[in-house]
Amino acid sequence: MATSPNEPFSAIICHPPTFTASGVPTPSWKFASKTLTLPRSPAPKELQIRVLATGICHTDLVVSSAPPPYANYPVVLGHEGAGIVEAVGEGVTVAKPGDKVLLSYSYCDACELCKYGKSKAWCEEFSPQNVAPIEGMFQNGEEKVRGKYFGQSSFAARTLVNEVSVVNVSRMVETEEELKLLAPLGCGIMTGAGNMQNVLKVGERDVVLVTGLGGVGLGGVMAAKARGAKAIVVVDRVKSRLELAKELGATHKIKEVTAGLRIAYALETSGVTKIAEQAVLAVGHRGHVAVVGVAPPTESVSLPNAEMMRRSKTLSNNVLGDSNAADMVPLLIRWWREGKLPLEKLVKFFKAEDFEAVLHGMHDGSVIKPVLVW
Amino acid sequence: MATSPNEPFSAIICHPPTFTASGVPTPSWKFASKTLTLPRSPAPKELQIRVLATGICHTDLVVSSAPPPYANYPVVLGHEGAGIVEAVGEGVTVAKPGDKVLLSYSYCDACELCKYGKSKAWCEEFSPQNVAPIEGMFQNGEEKVRGKYFGQSSFAARTLVNEVSVVNVSRMVETEEELKLLAPLGCGIMTGAGNMQNVLKVGERDVVLVTGLGGVGLGGVMAAKARGAKAIVVVDRVKSRLELAKELGATHKIKEVTAGLRIAYALETSGVTKIAEQAVLAVGHRGHVAVVGVAPPTESVSLPNAEMMRRSKTLSNNVLGDSNAADMVPLLIRWWREGKLPLEKLVKFFKAEDFEAVLHGMHDGSVIKPVLVW
Repeated sequence: MATSPNEPFSAIICHPPTFTASGVPTPSWKFASKTLTLPRSPAPKELQIRVLATGICHTDLVVSSAPPPYANYPVVLGHEGAGIVEAVGEGVTVAKPGDKVLLSYSYCDACELCKYGKSKAWCEEFSPQNVAPIEGMFQNGEEKVRGKYFGQSSFAARTLVNEVSVVNVSRMVETEEELKLLAPLGCGIMTGAGNMQNVLKVGERDVVLVTGLGGVGLGGVMAAKARGAKAIVVVDRVKSRLELAKELGATHKIKEVTAGLRIAYALETSGVTKIAEQAVLAVGHRGHVAVVGVAPPTESVSLPNAEMMRRSKTLSNNVLGDSNAADMVPLLIRWWREGKLPLEKLVKFFKAEDFEAVLHGMHDGSVIKPVLVW
Repeated sequence: MATSPNEPFSAIICHPPTFTASGVPTPSWKFASKTLTLPRSPAPKELQIRVLATGICHTDLVVSSAPPPYANYPVVLGHEGAGIVEAVGEGVTVAKPGDKVLLSYSYCDACELCKYGKSKAWCEEFSPQNVAPIEGMFQNGEEKVRGKYFGQSSFAARTLVNEVSVVNVSRMVETEEELKLLAPLGCGIMTGAGNMQNVLKVGERDVVLVTGLGGVGLGGVMAAKARGAKAIVVVDRVKSRLELAKELGATHKIKEVTAGLRIAYALETSGVTKIAEQAVLAVGHRGHVAVVGVAPPTESVSLPNAEMMRRSKTLSNNVLGDSNAADMVPLLIRWWREGKLPLEKLVKFFKAEDFEAVLHGMHDGSVIKPVLVW
């Protein structure tokens, strides 16, 4: 285990995307083996982490496909890290060197919503805190590379992270193998599960619809099942995902829904505007649709007045499912130990240098929750 | 005080609307003096009420402008009644003859949401229970007239009402004059106040926007003030209403809002789709827009994905502000006694036979909360 900030380590560096003839952006990621270094030791409220594994989330693909100035390059992405603390800066209390940690989103902890809001995910500075990486957090030879993406930039074997992004799981996780499996808890799974737990508060009388069965959607399915939902209806274009969803607790495909089955809640994770609109129509009286899928930002969801009023419906967007990582990660680990969150059915491990295979698998739907191992 | 169901009484009967050359519907109401009778004594779970006063709400205008088969005629509307119990049917426990009562909406008390939902206003049968009046609840000579609109049809000096629509206020209200003033509590005021109390749960750190300053909007202003909102921003096209709103607790017109004033919540009561959309843009990070204005049913509210996601916003429709009349009416009376709900500033009394003057005043914005006195 290396502790010197000068010792080089491997990472995935993201450069500006290339564009196909039709204007479709292609992420331009490059695996840099044993070449990055950290610029310094941990600053106050910062930790140096040896990253063991990190999940890839759809958000990484979206961000890495954005042209400058919306995204700034070169940058290390990655926001579902799992690792071991190597060193801590001044004033850090969450963990000490040697502790096992899972990494989650960052927040300012200073704004009114951080102080008095329901969840740290409400942070008014959420975007700058998470998707505006800071210059010079890594060195690639002479080149400065941005980091602190989601407070962590965990597509690197070593990184400097914000204390608020760290959940100390040393007492809950026994081995490094377990820790690697749990890497995706900090974002995708937490977002799906958090919406069921904190936003929709699904109960045993509720029928729930989940549209889109990636890591977020299946996290939602498992959480709905863990909370005892009466029925779980699922929608996806990939047949194998529908089958996996049934294994995880889904009870119906959308075509199997009968008139008597009033859908109380929907979790929309597909990122397709039309599907969000269909979900609003699909839920029943007093239905609430929670949207987390990253839909095209220039489009709008259209809500018909008649339906919204007559049935008193709600549509909400809740980043990270209003989860406080410090609360949700332990809950998810407990569910996993109890067999209610069988992550092993979703996770597929890849060597970090094989990340291109992951992108293909995510695109064709065959890989649900890829975890890169360093 | 007459108790025989055969003794005639006055009422406003609503006939199918007439249409102007441009297709605009005009409510067709007719004051019928001392001609209606009730067809029978109260059935089980029904009460016979001598109506002292009843508020007119915008919903009455909407319903009375709908052509058949959307509305069925002739019918007695009115759903903000205040009166005295004359007789009770079998099994009635809420009140006894002589009790003072305020009337509110009806619900089935049998569906899943009535049994387990947060509020009786969630009733799955809300529309049939409230806006599908029942044939033969009144007699106009040989003609059958529909009634039980909102469980009460209080545009009549005497009516048969559902027990669930009755709030017994005998212990809270001292005189019949007080009771008349409090008539509008059962719908309009409760809807505005209920959204602040039950849906948005406005607190002392919250800046609130209210669009549309009729009875519902001003009910919202007063409730936001009673709950200690940090600032209350108001929007209306009628200057006198803006001034009244300031008297009732509003702190800013929309043009006076500065960048530092993060609007947490909006209550949209204008019924204009574009204003609902503007409210979604006006609220800040994590903003929630509660819509109760009855907007054109064929239009849709358009929610831009970028804004909804980046700021994690919510739009909800909450009929009656998720209020249980049995809880909210006593709270509103308490606020009124404490000077926090100065209804006398909104209410204008009219003789029932002068209802046409009311319609004009509602149309030009000069009358905010008309109460007909029988």
